[in-house]
Amino acid sequence: MSQPEFLIIAEGAFSPETSKTANSAIRYLPERIVGVLDSTATGRTCQEVLGFGGAIPVVKSFADGLALGPTGILIGIAPPGGQLPAGWRGWLLEAIDLGLPIWSGLHTFIGDDPEFAARAKAKGVQILDARKPPASLRVSDGRARDVDAFVVLTVGSDCNVGKMTAQLQLVKDLNARGLRTRFAATGQTGILIEGWGIAVDAVVADFIGGAAESLTVEAAQNADVVLVEGQGSLIHPAYSGVTLGLLHGSCPRAMILSHQASRTMIGDYGGREPWVPIPMLSELVRIYEEAARPVFPSVVIGVALNTYDLSDADAKSAIAAAERDTGLPATDPVRYDPKPLVDAVAKAHAAWKVSR
Amino acid sequence: MSQPEFLIIAEGAFSPETSKTANSAIRYLPERIVGVLDSTATGRTCQEVLGFGGAIPVVKSFADGLALGPTGILIGIAPPGGQLPAGWRGWLLEAIDLGLPIWSGLHTFIGDDPEFAARAKAKGVQILDARKPPASLRVSDGRARDVDAFVVLTVGSDCNVGKMTAQLQLVKDLNARGLRTRFAATGQTGILIEGWGIAVDAVVADFIGGAAESLTVEAAQNADVVLVEGQGSLIHPAYSGVTLGLLHGSCPRAMILSHQASRTMIGDYGGREPWVPIPMLSELVRIYEEAARPVFPSVVIGVALNTYDLSDADAKSAIAAAERDTGLPATDPVRYDPKPLVDAVAKAHAAWKVSR
Repeated sequence: MSQPEFLIIAEGAFSPETSKTANSAIRYLPERIVGVLDSTATGRTCQEVLGFGGAIPVVKSFADGLALGPTGILIGIAPPGGQLPAGWRGWLLEAIDLGLPIWSGLHTFIGDDPEFAARAKAKGVQILDARKPPASLRVSDGRARDVDAFVVLTVGSDCNVGKMTAQLQLVKDLNARGLRTRFAATGQTGILIEGWGIAVDAVVADFIGGAAESLTVEAAQNADVVLVEGQGSLIHPAYSGVTLGLLHGSCPRAMILSHQASRTMIGDYGGREPWVPIPMLSELVRIYEEAARPVFPSVVIGVALNTYDLSDADAKSAIAAAERDTGLPATDPVRYDPKPLVDAVAKAHAAWKVSR
Repeated sequence: MSQPEFLIIAEGAFSPETSKTANSAIRYLPERIVGVLDSTATGRTCQEVLGFGGAIPVVKSFADGLALGPTGILIGIAPPGGQLPAGWRGWLLEAIDLGLPIWSGLHTFIGDDPEFAARAKAKGVQILDARKPPASLRVSDGRARDVDAFVVLTVGSDCNVGKMTAQLQLVKDLNARGLRTRFAATGQTGILIEGWGIAVDAVVADFIGGAAESLTVEAAQNADVVLVEGQGSLIHPAYSGVTLGLLHGSCPRAMILSHQASRTMIGDYGGREPWVPIPMLSELVRIYEEAARPVFPSVVIGVALNTYDLSDADAKSAIAAAERDTGLPATDPVRYDPKPLVDAVAKAHAAWKVSR
């Protein structure tokens, strides 16, 4: 398909924390975003709301958004449970009537909604549900162990701490060092950015491992390094199953631990009071290495800290503390030079090549 | 619905290892099973094939099975990936034509097959897909922590080691001690037996925890003890995600570890050579308690060994070895008196009541 230029709908939710799909699209595909609809953030730019995204405007009405000339609509949120807010239906119907394709990463498939589906069919408009799993998935059988590429999985303290972002920061630099590097997207935003992938949290539970395995095997063709996008956290009460299935299905040889430095409790959690504390990073390293070991041993080789909400001094202090705690290279690969993590992957890849 | 009397189809697969759904139905609902179709096991009784099930006959043809007068058909297998063997389609169509409801625990929903669905609709015949998830599921939010019942989850070394069977053996004795005990089914066989439940391996991956939580909360109403049926294993490469989601979603206060004493490798695994060794039971205890701890601490209180393929002397020796290794009460609750495990649950329940 041709790549549309999107108006993002993030009504009432455009912020660093609550509009993950929008924010990633703005970070990685700014040239394909014409504006963001959120009447509660009107008059500011993406830069002002997020700290990146430059002059991309936030508009107060759907009509103002259409005036920016989008050739597609992107639903900018992916809330737990994944329902479309009821108030958004009218906008989507209007967009379909105007011939604009709808791109969604929601759990609830827009294309399965009878009204949207009928209208889109009548108008010949595409609805793209990125989370819709492939029609045919298998149970994993261990094939990911045998791939001829160095597989690195990002793992995290929590959801939405920057696992995908950390990896995307490494791709270009690893390629520049002569390592053909492929990003294997496992979530809706990664799929939007990369153009392929499987949303592993949207597959039937028995196939989590199989989906991770298929992705890894496919990404490993003609690659030296595969960066598998991590999901959730092994200590997240709601999403830990996805995390462990992804770990055991993708058989990574190394892991990068992601964490938002200011976060102390598992947070992205359905509206209840947070109740699971995030342990020390060194303890998280131990938890992930222990979980991997019985199936396919793996080691954490570096720490990617997300420090967007800290001062420069506090960010650097958090990075130094992470290095002391874990004995591993650490950085905020978005805010600072990703070199410590690029070095860690390149070094681990080289050691693996020698060992084969 | 009325409860049909089933002809079980297990063609080519009727054995202690390969026909899990059939075997559990025969063990727990023998009065509702008229016969088993498997032309490769013809002429034997269920007792002779499985070691239980008495005189229920194995028949060589579908016609012979129909002659036994079933009022429903039960698909007796649930293979990895869950496809219906192609050769079985004719039997199901014939059954539908005869007005016999079809009960299935396969991942592939019989009711979603256009040919079966159309035929069943035309004939007014029910198709029951036990694995079909409830239409509306939520992400878990920790409600299972607060239930006013003592929640016990079975966990295991592998799939198909007897997790469900171990718990079902405890229900009657716990009730006899005055503890109102509810079994919360999480797999197709348990749902058949219990008449309710959610097949957690069949829900969308993000909702594993939420499904486990809903089940636990519902089962806890008017119960003193809830026995949540475990699934898979934390060290199973393909199914570990389901296991961890179930553990974190159901928030058990105690766990019973299940293991088939003769098994040394993770086995139920898509046709590839087994490659994951099963560690010592004491190490499995540690793995499960460590996995639970960051979210909701839990302890293993007993070991349920499956010794069906061992001599009496070897079985007793395996039980003694398990007790030595773990320091916990152990038994084969199917072959021998389940009392050590009943005692362990009752004792843990009493201690919990005192602590509140």
